[in-house]
Amino acid sequence: MADLTPNPSFSLTIRLQLPNRTGMLASVTQAIAEVGGNLGQISTIEQTRKISIRDLSVDAASTEHAEQIVQAVKVLQDIKILDVYDRTFSIHRGGKITIESKLDLHNQADLSMAYTPGVGRICKAIAQDPDQVYALTIKGNTVAIVTDGSAVLGLGNLGPEAALPVMEGKAMLFKEFAGIDAFPICLATQDTDKIIETIKNIAPVFGGVNLEDISAPRCFEIETRLKQELDIPVFHDDQHGTAIVSLAALINALKLVKKSLEDVRIVINGAGAAGVAIARLLRKAGARNILLCDSKGILSKKRSDLTQEKLEFAVEASGTLAGALVGTDIFLGVSAPGVLTPEMVRSMAKDSIVMAMANPIPEIQPELIAHDVAVMATGRSDYPNQINNVLAFPGVFRGALDCRASSITTNMYLEAAFAIANLINATDLDREHIIPSVFDERVASAVAGAVQQAARQDGVARR
Amino acid sequence: MADLTPNPSFSLTIRLQLPNRTGMLASVTQAIAEVGGNLGQISTIEQTRKISIRDLSVDAASTEHAEQIVQAVKVLQDIKILDVYDRTFSIHRGGKITIESKLDLHNQADLSMAYTPGVGRICKAIAQDPDQVYALTIKGNTVAIVTDGSAVLGLGNLGPEAALPVMEGKAMLFKEFAGIDAFPICLATQDTDKIIETIKNIAPVFGGVNLEDISAPRCFEIETRLKQELDIPVFHDDQHGTAIVSLAALINALKLVKKSLEDVRIVINGAGAAGVAIARLLRKAGARNILLCDSKGILSKKRSDLTQEKLEFAVEASGTLAGALVGTDIFLGVSAPGVLTPEMVRSMAKDSIVMAMANPIPEIQPELIAHDVAVMATGRSDYPNQINNVLAFPGVFRGALDCRASSITTNMYLEAAFAIANLINATDLDREHIIPSVFDERVASAVAGAVQQAARQDGVARR
Repeated sequence: MADLTPNPSFSLTIRLQLPNRTGMLASVTQAIAEVGGNLGQISTIEQTRKISIRDLSVDAASTEHAEQIVQAVKVLQDIKILDVYDRTFSIHRGGKITIESKLDLHNQADLSMAYTPGVGRICKAIAQDPDQVYALTIKGNTVAIVTDGSAVLGLGNLGPEAALPVMEGKAMLFKEFAGIDAFPICLATQDTDKIIETIKNIAPVFGGVNLEDISAPRCFEIETRLKQELDIPVFHDDQHGTAIVSLAALINALKLVKKSLEDVRIVINGAGAAGVAIARLLRKAGARNILLCDSKGILSKKRSDLTQEKLEFAVEASGTLAGALVGTDIFLGVSAPGVLTPEMVRSMAKDSIVMAMANPIPEIQPELIAHDVAVMATGRSDYPNQINNVLAFPGVFRGALDCRASSITTNMYLEAAFAIANLINATDLDREHIIPSVFDERVASAVAGAVQQAARQDGVARR
Repeated sequence: MADLTPNPSFSLTIRLQLPNRTGMLASVTQAIAEVGGNLGQISTIEQTRKISIRDLSVDAASTEHAEQIVQAVKVLQDIKILDVYDRTFSIHRGGKITIESKLDLHNQADLSMAYTPGVGRICKAIAQDPDQVYALTIKGNTVAIVTDGSAVLGLGNLGPEAALPVMEGKAMLFKEFAGIDAFPICLATQDTDKIIETIKNIAPVFGGVNLEDISAPRCFEIETRLKQELDIPVFHDDQHGTAIVSLAALINALKLVKKSLEDVRIVINGAGAAGVAIARLLRKAGARNILLCDSKGILSKKRSDLTQEKLEFAVEASGTLAGALVGTDIFLGVSAPGVLTPEMVRSMAKDSIVMAMANPIPEIQPELIAHDVAVMATGRSDYPNQINNVLAFPGVFRGALDCRASSITTNMYLEAAFAIANLINATDLDREHIIPSVFDERVASAVAGAVQQAARQDGVARR
């Protein structure tokens, strides 16, 4: 399934050599526009009396579309393509994070303090008082981002190596948004017991564990057992990050349509990690009418194929997603590309809210139902109302690390969601602005503050 | 056992308030000199007509000595100590390394490329062609520094948390000297099988594994099995790093005393990881007369307590270290503080070479035998001829990563040692200069080049 809108994830840079005469560049930009390419920056690399060499950045909608664009330029007379490179691939070369020293090592004195023999004194101090590991090492500000590669984005079981670019991206976000040092751990096992044991074995370096892209139902057991067996916070972002931000967006969307969480009918499509966690958190927040669907339809008590987590939400009713949606106020999708049709959306109640959060391609393209819903949100950064976990996890861990929380509680999730929602004040709230931008600098500290306070109330803060 | 020489690992900064009149500062510096403190930088923090506030950096020889120095200043009339802080502890606060993003995340376009949805394209590319993980992620330049905390420096089994400051220091060195991103993994288990399984489970992110401070004899099995079971280079630095640099130093020391490795009598004290590895590498380099001792004396065939690795070097003879040393050309110590006495050194052959490498406190303080040996080396950065693994491991891994070696071979160790030794040319070679400074910028690239070449010869280079 192709994307419908050109976007930077399919961005190209085309290096061209053009004759240096009037109208040549215009012919290129027109050719690109005609095939639907979205032209960005144009820079001149070299110019002589006869020719000019220029770099054109162009957003495409898909790989095929990118090829179309290149083809459209190629056929122009007198214009020569010198190079085409894919910007997304370019920025990934060599990886996206780096480990740096905080101190200069210029001379023997530096070395004697940071390494042997001076470091031996620090080792002894920690051996004598283990709590000092938080003060004298990276532990207090370091999080492991752990995956087994079994559910990479919405792309499936791609394995640990293919998951690494996502984990590196996550590490970038931890640093950028909360100043947290996060390191990717991609596991060569998908066995629940081995995953748990491995994480426990590497835990001493880390102040927290962020589980990521681990498929359901194993993710539930892994998180539950790690929470019991480790004394540092463990957070499965696909569950709770998604749930926190979904709840935050929903709180504000409901304000717009003047409905209350207690009264609305909610359909959640996707009963994996995210779907179950959203359903659980919405219940905690007061929602009473939730239907969970998976690829086989409504989680019905009549079905015999439900896992323990799915049974938590099983109902007497049965049927398809389409059937479940008729007259429903809210659709929350954490499922698969394209499973929602415009017809299904039009069957929903008046002032419907659609949050189509499948990644990277949503359950329905927003363009198709722009006039049929009161509020539309997706998981993508190139549409309004992005339900992006980056609104939650940096602040959640910042708060948890700052108060040295021993675990993360449901109240901490709830308070994080309200903190995010409350950043949009009544005058700013509209259908394309139900949730702060991921670049809103207030978010992480607002979330961190709320999470810390909840941690203290719940008695899990250790300082 | 206290150190004898003031050094930066016991460096203090004392903040003083002094009456602003002639001779006051002189009385302080004199008091410090009288108790043997080594005065460094003095900076003025504030100065009024009546008083001045100054920071004095002072190197002490031990914690007790540092207290003595503070006491000597405290008793001075009219002088007030405002603050004393320990510089080694200060630089360790919050840890010594940080994880940074290589790219800016300023806007949605950045996010769309580095994170979702663009990153999904990178994941798919790696899933389709697993080799791309080297090009498109951090793997190709990232090393795990793995310890179980069972043999931290020379301090013993301090556990994983107390080992972390050393691993962070190592990560600094990897970056500073070879541009390698290295991350500390401190394991909460000391079980051989679990260590091996855990490292294999986290291997997908890493281009190499540096084992560190794991006690013998487990370290031998762990390294051997990991080398068999992983397709990335595995290097136990306490073994091979120490062996490479020891051999390099010995090659040059022998030039000075005009003896040949084939002919000299060598006693190695300490039959742990380093001792066994040094003995093995010296043999490969041509040494024929090696006696290995442990805390019970010579590894003799008559003993019934020898591990498999110790048996490799067991001889008919038996006796104490002191006995073994009589008439010997070379002492190599990788054992414990103070086990070597001046008397033992004086019993050695003419032009003896003593390399007392116990960390952080050597087998004998160099001051005690300055006139009794031809060449003296230690593991410390505050004496000449520092046998420091940092001369080896950064270049070894740089070379191994650059040619994507599948493992590290004995020839790679040997070539690394010769590359280090050859950096000291004949005119520069003297008894206080048998090995390059760790700050000699040629070292890492010389080692990397030699290691790459050996890897190609041995058929382990994969590109």
